Amino acid sequence: MDTSKLFSNLKLDSMANIPMYLQIANCLTAKITDGQIPSNTKLPPERQLAEHFGVSRTTAISAYRLLEERGLISTRMGSGTYVNQAEPSHSAGLSVPWEQLFIPQHYSPLASLLRSLIAAPAAGEVISMAAGLPDPALYPVELFERALHKNNRLDPADLGHIPTEGYLPFKQALSHWLQQGGIDATPETLLTVSGSQQGLYLAVKTLIEPRDYVIVESPTYLGAIQILESAGARILCLPQSGSYDLGLLEDYLIRYRPKLFYTIPTFQNPSGRVASLRERQELIALAGRHRLPIIEDDPYSPIYFEQQPPPSLKALDNYGGVIYLGTFSKILFPGLRLGWIAAPQAVIHRLALEKQYIDLHSNNMSQLILQKCLEEDYLPQHLKRIRAEYKKRRDAMARALNQYCRGQLTFEPASGGFYLWCKIQAALSPSELLHQATAAGISFVPGEAFYTNGSASQEIRLSFSAHDPRRLQQGIAILGKLLTAAPVHPARPLPAAGRPII
Amino acid sequence: MDTSKLFSNLKLDSMANIPMYLQIANCLTAKITDGQIPSNTKLPPERQLAEHFGVSRTTAISAYRLLEERGLISTRMGSGTYVNQAEPSHSAGLSVPWEQLFIPQHYSPLASLLRSLIAAPAAGEVISMAAGLPDPALYPVELFERALHKNNRLDPADLGHIPTEGYLPFKQALSHWLQQGGIDATPETLLTVSGSQQGLYLAVKTLIEPRDYVIVESPTYLGAIQILESAGARILCLPQSGSYDLGLLEDYLIRYRPKLFYTIPTFQNPSGRVASLRERQELIALAGRHRLPIIEDDPYSPIYFEQQPPPSLKALDNYGGVIYLGTFSKILFPGLRLGWIAAPQAVIHRLALEKQYIDLHSNNMSQLILQKCLEEDYLPQHLKRIRAEYKKRRDAMARALNQYCRGQLTFEPASGGFYLWCKIQAALSPSELLHQATAAGISFVPGEAFYTNGSASQEIRLSFSAHDPRRLQQGIAILGKLLTAAPVHPARPLPAAGRPII
Repeated sequence: MDTSKLFSNLKLDSMANIPMYLQIANCLTAKITDGQIPSNTKLPPERQLAEHFGVSRTTAISAYRLLEERGLISTRMGSGTYVNQAEPSHSAGLSVPWEQLFIPQHYSPLASLLRSLIAAPAAGEVISMAAGLPDPALYPVELFERALHKNNRLDPADLGHIPTEGYLPFKQALSHWLQQGGIDATPETLLTVSGSQQGLYLAVKTLIEPRDYVIVESPTYLGAIQILESAGARILCLPQSGSYDLGLLEDYLIRYRPKLFYTIPTFQNPSGRVASLRERQELIALAGRHRLPIIEDDPYSPIYFEQQPPPSLKALDNYGGVIYLGTFSKILFPGLRLGWIAAPQAVIHRLALEKQYIDLHSNNMSQLILQKCLEEDYLPQHLKRIRAEYKKRRDAMARALNQYCRGQLTFEPASGGFYLWCKIQAALSPSELLHQATAAGISFVPGEAFYTNGSASQEIRLSFSAHDPRRLQQGIAILGKLLTAAPVHPARPLPAAGRPII
Repeated sequence: MDTSKLFSNLKLDSMANIPMYLQIANCLTAKITDGQIPSNTKLPPERQLAEHFGVSRTTAISAYRLLEERGLISTRMGSGTYVNQAEPSHSAGLSVPWEQLFIPQHYSPLASLLRSLIAAPAAGEVISMAAGLPDPALYPVELFERALHKNNRLDPADLGHIPTEGYLPFKQALSHWLQQGGIDATPETLLTVSGSQQGLYLAVKTLIEPRDYVIVESPTYLGAIQILESAGARILCLPQSGSYDLGLLEDYLIRYRPKLFYTIPTFQNPSGRVASLRERQELIALAGRHRLPIIEDDPYSPIYFEQQPPPSLKALDNYGGVIYLGTFSKILFPGLRLGWIAAPQAVIHRLALEKQYIDLHSNNMSQLILQKCLEEDYLPQHLKRIRAEYKKRRDAMARALNQYCRGQLTFEPASGGFYLWCKIQAALSPSELLHQATAAGISFVPGEAFYTNGSASQEIRLSFSAHDPRRLQQGIAILGKLLTAAPVHPARPLPAAGRPII
């Protein structure tokens, strides 16, 4: 057909905002899709198209290229440009290739482990010794009613937006509470966050660039490993022994100039270790000399079973270097999503700027509830109650391990927190054991989850927080049976680091 | 003094974990700080130190360098190495130089504006027409009591951790609600987020790398500009005219291959514009051809004053390209921090992985409250009530503008939402006007806050949501006085785009 006729009634508007090539392409698109230009029509060469519209050849080429992208025309080598067969529906079956659009990101395989740990409720018959969760039976549900009804009604003014830094009456009550624990925090040096997870995310987001070095204890909290790896940090491991290895730490500081040290000094997760006062003082002195920022993650210190643990690193901080992460998830409800950061004001300021982008501010309800809880001095009696209960559970688990797993397993003592850190003697990996355990109705976390390199480890973490002593005993009895049935390493000595069951 | 004696009783342990240079430095540190080696003592040259300990010269140099870093010794040119004067307290006055440690980050000056907008409660006497906040007098506070006491008590199981994707009963109730509005969302294609701010943050975090192009309407929501700028995006502006400029949009798509288009199709913030059904269909067709991801931010569509707005882009999406952001902040309480994303499952999956790092999951209480609210079909009657109330306020503000600001100001019509977008005729900038306004007891947002380039604009955004008609009238009367007193541009014609007050 004579295509020149087709174009004769097309007018371009050189004054319009729309570029010429796009006007041409749109005209042709309309004529092709409504059938005025049928399939297999040969279109004029680019030069001719350019002449017809009085545009440059480049413009004509751009118009044809766009029609090709739209799937409307094709160039046949040595023959010319032709209109394609009409497709039944233009965008049918097309969809956005999301997987290709996302920024490449390393998600640790641990991510799914942590997700399943927090997501899976302790389902009916399974005895979960995996997640480090408080027992819902110990949640002080009455707090909600007290908070909401003590003064008969909520004040609507408290349900609107609040400052990113947090709800001031809550931060005031919190600062009184912290001062009793030796942390000299004012509301200006506190930031309310949506769980201490968010505190860690904010600190890493503002301090760590890809390839920066950070130091962590090894083993350590798997959620911290994930955030650090996701930020592209290079992780230096400080192996846990009896105490902080300050010699190695200082060597790291000099060799690698790391950006920060992430540590859980009290009832460490997973090892249960408590750093002594002297160790803490020496760590602070060393960190102060090197101006090393420390992130002190402290979810477990209120849950002690014997004497009160030493003061936090934050309480000892004399160089303004400690970013302290606190939370109510372990002692009240995880679902509150309420934690806080205590840090120098410059840090609070910068982290709040970042937090504003993420969620404007944390939810008001949790802060209102905790404000009442702190003001009415509810926590001390509640803590006394849960310390006594979790101590019973630790004792029950330790007794059961001695009874059912003697010779199969050694464990570190734990004078607080939620976990016993155990080493198994059997010739099967913790993952294999977990496979059998799940089938038998119990669960735990294999030790490798707490190492940055996913290195093989014969360790497992048993949480005693979620079940009462009777259930824990049942669970450990099952574990004992599995271990007894497992093959034994031919000539494997008891590792010196482990502690025999006593 | 003869320093060789000082070293005679120092023994290094070549088997220890601690590197030799550090052992040497630590020995000397101990002797210097406890006074055994007094100030101004000349230390042996590095070669001699190396010989004494049987180490390499490099090791000796490293040891001295470390002591220098610790502030204990100094090298005097041509003379040797000397012990420094002891300082009264070793780490006194030293502190971490936080400002230098933070990752360099561009925080838009808008950040502080948004912060002050959300932080400042409508203080007693100020008539705030700045922030786009619902009136606390319209908060349905009874929702809390209904949710918490309908069944007499909270179930502790609902106060623990929940999946990152959200509390399933809430998502089920939400999906029913959305299906009534034509959005075919199942719980698997919904993600609970901590306010739609977090939804936007997550989408940008996973899709935008520095220097990526994105398209936004201009003017647009300042919180979106901030997040995009903070991610390092290059922003292409689609100027608002009567409708989406699809020609320019397609030109952008071809020239720059942008990663996404951020748009508020319904009661746009700040312009109040509503895209027609036909425009929406054409936009979806164009975006589908180019596989362009669209972020549809839709906080205002439930707040309509005349007919119901057209279906959302999400409802029209036939190519799986729309990420829909919803929130309860404008229709219930901002303090809930509860929003949601409706998007293809691949998107939900990836955003949930990212969200896990940020806060594990959003708080349970808000989801519990909203679940009850949706299940009991509470929203329709509440929405009817607030639509009627906000319509009265829009009418009152428009009337007052006609009465007090005629000839001084033109404004766009708004058939829903919270804002009137106005253009002032006076020869003073909106910032100058704001300065006077604040002194006179009223406030608003200068138009430049809604442009990416901070370009001068004679526009201001007036929010009618936070005050009753009487207060709004008072506020506009004050504005009218200020405008009348302001100098008038000598020969400035009324801009054609503006709409004269009728």
